[in-house]
Amino acid sequence: MSHQEGLTAYIAAFVAELSKTGVKDVVISPGSRSTPMALVMAEHPDLRIHIQVDERSASFFALGIAKATKKPVALLCTSGTAAANYYPAVIEASISRIPLIVLTADRPHELRDVGAPQAIDQIHLYGKNVKWFVEMAPPEKTEDMIRYARTVCGRAAATAASYPQGPVHLNFPFREPLIPVMDENMFELPERAGGYVEIETGHLSLSDRSFAAIREDIASYTKGIIVCGQLDNSEFTDEVIALADRLQFPIIADPLSQLRSGEHDGQHIIDAYDAFLRNEDAKEALKPDVIIRFGAMPISKALTIFIKENRTARQFVVDSGAGWREPTMSASEMLYCDEALFCKKVGEAAAPVSNSGYLNKWLTVNELAKEQMAAISQVEDLSEGKLFQQLTELLPEGSTLFVGNSMPIRDLDSFFLLNKKNIKVMANRGANGIDGIVSTALGVASVSQPCYLVLGDLTFYHDLNGLLASKLYNIDINILLINNNGGGIFSFLPQAKEPKHFEKLFGTPLDLDFSHVVEMYNGKYDLIQDWEHFSDAFAKNQEIGGLKVMEIRTKRDSNLKEHRDLWNSVSREITTMLKGDTK
Amino acid sequence: MSHQEGLTAYIAAFVAELSKTGVKDVVISPGSRSTPMALVMAEHPDLRIHIQVDERSASFFALGIAKATKKPVALLCTSGTAAANYYPAVIEASISRIPLIVLTADRPHELRDVGAPQAIDQIHLYGKNVKWFVEMAPPEKTEDMIRYARTVCGRAAATAASYPQGPVHLNFPFREPLIPVMDENMFELPERAGGYVEIETGHLSLSDRSFAAIREDIASYTKGIIVCGQLDNSEFTDEVIALADRLQFPIIADPLSQLRSGEHDGQHIIDAYDAFLRNEDAKEALKPDVIIRFGAMPISKALTIFIKENRTARQFVVDSGAGWREPTMSASEMLYCDEALFCKKVGEAAAPVSNSGYLNKWLTVNELAKEQMAAISQVEDLSEGKLFQQLTELLPEGSTLFVGNSMPIRDLDSFFLLNKKNIKVMANRGANGIDGIVSTALGVASVSQPCYLVLGDLTFYHDLNGLLASKLYNIDINILLINNNGGGIFSFLPQAKEPKHFEKLFGTPLDLDFSHVVEMYNGKYDLIQDWEHFSDAFAKNQEIGGLKVMEIRTKRDSNLKEHRDLWNSVSREITTMLKGDTK
Repeated sequence: MSHQEGLTAYIAAFVAELSKTGVKDVVISPGSRSTPMALVMAEHPDLRIHIQVDERSASFFALGIAKATKKPVALLCTSGTAAANYYPAVIEASISRIPLIVLTADRPHELRDVGAPQAIDQIHLYGKNVKWFVEMAPPEKTEDMIRYARTVCGRAAATAASYPQGPVHLNFPFREPLIPVMDENMFELPERAGGYVEIETGHLSLSDRSFAAIREDIASYTKGIIVCGQLDNSEFTDEVIALADRLQFPIIADPLSQLRSGEHDGQHIIDAYDAFLRNEDAKEALKPDVIIRFGAMPISKALTIFIKENRTARQFVVDSGAGWREPTMSASEMLYCDEALFCKKVGEAAAPVSNSGYLNKWLTVNELAKEQMAAISQVEDLSEGKLFQQLTELLPEGSTLFVGNSMPIRDLDSFFLLNKKNIKVMANRGANGIDGIVSTALGVASVSQPCYLVLGDLTFYHDLNGLLASKLYNIDINILLINNNGGGIFSFLPQAKEPKHFEKLFGTPLDLDFSHVVEMYNGKYDLIQDWEHFSDAFAKNQEIGGLKVMEIRTKRDSNLKEHRDLWNSVSREITTMLKGDTK
Repeated sequence: MSHQEGLTAYIAAFVAELSKTGVKDVVISPGSRSTPMALVMAEHPDLRIHIQVDERSASFFALGIAKATKKPVALLCTSGTAAANYYPAVIEASISRIPLIVLTADRPHELRDVGAPQAIDQIHLYGKNVKWFVEMAPPEKTEDMIRYARTVCGRAAATAASYPQGPVHLNFPFREPLIPVMDENMFELPERAGGYVEIETGHLSLSDRSFAAIREDIASYTKGIIVCGQLDNSEFTDEVIALADRLQFPIIADPLSQLRSGEHDGQHIIDAYDAFLRNEDAKEALKPDVIIRFGAMPISKALTIFIKENRTARQFVVDSGAGWREPTMSASEMLYCDEALFCKKVGEAAAPVSNSGYLNKWLTVNELAKEQMAAISQVEDLSEGKLFQQLTELLPEGSTLFVGNSMPIRDLDSFFLLNKKNIKVMANRGANGIDGIVSTALGVASVSQPCYLVLGDLTFYHDLNGLLASKLYNIDINILLINNNGGGIFSFLPQAKEPKHFEKLFGTPLDLDFSHVVEMYNGKYDLIQDWEHFSDAFAKNQEIGGLKVMEIRTKRDSNLKEHRDLWNSVSREITTMLKGDTK
């Protein structure tokens, strides 16, 4: 048997199994060493191939598809630094628990660490940032090696998809010649119709005894709150709302908890905490005895501080991924359990209670804060905060809102409040990078429409290359580019008081006219003049496809002032109210 | 003593020592966690600070400065995936032996692996791709910790700079508050005027007995060749030419050996081997008995095959970095020794010999091949090969020519032949990536002028972000963009015979009008119409500063034909000549 036949049979077995595991999307970056895998994948009838030349953008694009579909997406690149460009997205996938199957082509053993071209050490290239690494056996067409290729593939997909989801990495040594010999039956495995090995992955559950003990524990407190960070699980949404209703606990709902939008009644949802938890009187009045936490740590620093300041409260942290998403060192109980199941089990036996004064206090303070924050709608100039308030009104039903890190995610937290629309809110909150955001959003947009991306100018600049996907595949995306010409978030940090090096090291104005690059990628560009222009452009862009960029130019200093003024007015009103209460 | 005073004193000691070791350039990407180090560095009078928002581009920019200066350059970024974006450049620096000092800010221990924002596992982040990794002690102002900061810094710089040069990584845990308390004496260390610890790094040398044995060995052969791959050491250049003269061996000079340009007489230099070593008659006629190899593996695949086909010859591989740059498995002797010293020691005792028929045969075949290859100058259409032939004529004295991977480096090999100009030729040939090329060249251009970069459209696209450095720092660079709308090199590979998926997976036309992006970065753009336009634009651009991009649009298929025709004509003529010889 020829080398090429062996190569083809082995790879075809792997690719056939990949499709059987449910993988639909493969993001490929062009290269020579990966040729046999790329050609066999392209030949498979059920795989959707996306090409992206920049491997960094490719990997974030794959991350986006996997975020939106919650299913593993495969990546393929050639040997060398190509694979190293995946590193940021692999780390983001690892921390934010997104399933990726990273496939890297490598030189065969005899060409490693000997100065051969385009050869780097790819063994454990991503260190501990992948759930599983396999150095694949050299391709061969023996019965065992064909079954090996299928087995490893099935196991890789199952490992990526089981909780906590995450990336896996398989490294393939390919020897020349690299051209496969296509055979129309190469994907077949007559003896088994389904996957080669069907893998069922369970979920974590506590014992009924534990659930009972927790129920009893929680029932002994009246001042309880539920804190929901990033968690994207529709079953959980329903269950946690039912639990809050049973317990009459408020739900402190991070914008990525998916609890601020949707058709639920929202009567336990607290959404303006980032504003009012800056006020000492509010924090004093709202002190809890028990906190139940789900999902990633919330975005709000004020909330994090509040959690840390209440270490005498019982704090239950529930995590289906058996991790440790708890930087506050306040947890008293760490519970490794499926979150929806936890809510169901704890909620179903809890006797319904009537609305306590404590819940009402949270709701009242929240309402007052929202009234003050609503003043943002009166701002006439273009404003970062008002943009999110506007979005609550303008976004079409069923859309996805992807938000960049640094300021946009914080403004989302402050100004994108409870609404009845069915809006999915997403961000890359594993490592909170400003890298790869355009590509991640385009990956989301390739499977979920309509899609809106809000990001700052530095974040946009960082992944301009990502825009290529929109051009090549005509993906519809609406980008709302907040251009404050530099790092807006630093104005909120202590270094803003060090004027000497501030603009050079932190402000970093780039002075880029992004209309040029939008044109290069065949996009439609609007430089927004005022709010009327914004809503007009917003509406018009809904009628057309492809890449649309609306640039909103703001000023870093007036943005800072606007936020401070609002927080001050919230604080003033709350103190007035609460002091009045106690009189 | 306050936390901030301790932080400042510790960092100031480190930064003061960094400057004492000779580091001049620091490339900083903005971030919060790295604030104390960034501010202290900005305060240091002798450090040149470069800001680049995209850490991938930042790291390649640093690589470029280090390539051009041969001295360590420092990089600084914040915690999180920022640091992961350095990975491709760190790997390139490791394999191509370029000294970098990577400084990453990290969360303190209590905020690691607990879901804190922007926290990833930065311990051994770059795996085995750095020469040294240190998890720095938390900052403190005790006498020992100040001396520790200075000692580690000195050691890091010396480790990066000693042979083989390469990257080192220091990870700094910084706790809030992150603002240093500047003190005008903070960099001082009265008791020691120079560096805290002066580190002297030796070079490798064989024993005199070994040198004598090698001399004797080599003297016993008459058919000997010297192969020089990438090596940038002016002392070596002189010594290897003297050695070749003594031994009357031809020097097979890779374009990155720095032997194809310069004022030496060039009478032993073989530069057209990539063309004629494709011919079986030439390979038979030129069979060597002994091969002495220096530097990285040459670019030419024909030469690599020639080396592999002559495994019965003695093959000495000399490496000052004690590595294994020998993928051909042909070496009979691996000698860990400074290359210049080796040439000197072996050459000085070798009795001069007169020009052998063997050397003449190489020179004759080389001359014939060059005559045939010179036909490229007759091509009227815009041609990738002719561009390099033109550059030999047009490049100003003392310029640096930076060349992208894939096709440009191969065309450089074929068409950039022996010349008397003092031209430095550079490329990223560690891992041969298409990533970071624009930034590396701009790093070079920031310290070495004039600078010319030749690269293809995919490579240009991959690092468009790198152009920002030119805009922010007004760095002069001439970019010759060969746009064949896709991956030109794949037309030369076997997959070109698989038309079904070729354009999609390998050709990958991007159809980008790069004039837009050049305009965004305030560059001057010329779409070259013909050769006259090219030389005009080339001359005009020498008069102006900043970013200048000349785009040369070529066709992948006619380029392939042009190369094949030339190689065929070389082969035909050589066979005719050699068969005539033997008649």
